[in-house]
Amino acid sequence: MYNHEPKDYKCPFCGLEAGVDYENVLSKQDDIVYQDQYLTAFIGTHWWLHNSGSVIIVPNKHIENIYDLDDETGAKVFSLARKIAIAMKQEYKCDATSTRQHNEPAGNQSVWHYHFHIIPRYNGDDLYLNHKNKKYIEPNIRKIWADKLKNKIG
Amino acid sequence: MYNHEPKDYKCPFCGLEAGVDYENVLSKQDDIVYQDQYLTAFIGTHWWLHNSGSVIIVPNKHIENIYDLDDETGAKVFSLARKIAIAMKQEYKCDATSTRQHNEPAGNQSVWHYHFHIIPRYNGDDLYLNHKNKKYIEPNIRKIWADKLKNKIG
Repeated sequence: MYNHEPKDYKCPFCGLEAGVDYENVLSKQDDIVYQDQYLTAFIGTHWWLHNSGSVIIVPNKHIENIYDLDDETGAKVFSLARKIAIAMKQEYKCDATSTRQHNEPAGNQSVWHYHFHIIPRYNGDDLYLNHKNKKYIEPNIRKIWADKLKNKIG
Repeated sequence: MYNHEPKDYKCPFCGLEAGVDYENVLSKQDDIVYQDQYLTAFIGTHWWLHNSGSVIIVPNKHIENIYDLDDETGAKVFSLARKIAIAMKQEYKCDATSTRQHNEPAGNQSVWHYHFHIIPRYNGDDLYLNHKNKKYIEPNIRKIWADKLKNKIG
């Protein structure tokens, strides 16, 4: 319900989950920090100014938003988010963590596959006021941050 | 782990859950939109500029943050968040919804009891850039918004 996905949408997250790197998909296999039959978690391609190594969790099945997500998958997302937050504390040595999740265009959703953000936080990072200070990060840099978390989650 | 609650902390959310209105606790019984033996959901006392009627979900047991929250309770939070998001769409007629959750002071946490925000979103609301445009709302106004959701969730 309340769907906005255009017809013939090529989902970048489903591309990532397919297990290969596609030229037109920014996310790469090396971004993945955890994967099982239900979920994939990976380092996002765009980072806010002071919040390097933000992670995105997606269900492997293509579901657009929270309204359509079943409770069983939602429970798995929560459980993995907690593990990632703890791994960030241990490996990134961040001061804090926060999570967020957007549904529909007016709610800042721009990829039409449910995704849940876990963001490492630091004193004075002004995450919200820096909302537009977000930039694309090259895959080789993302891989360094993915490798930090990879062995901690599972 | 990673706890910041001061000694002798008087938790405002535990006050709310106790089933009575305390003078020194801003949240009131009339703010509650849903309650069961595990969770309480209520209209927050402070609203962002364009996002009237934001809801907060808390576990009834006093847990400080995501690091300490068990998966079973986390699953219940997710399930209720989804119901509230759908109820907001139906009753508030909002354009979208988003969720967020903060852990530790550097991550914008200021009440030392785990809480999960569900925020109604509108085209052009600039929720993040308006982060500091948040104000206290009187209980009689909050009650109007609580009543909109009350019968829809459960």
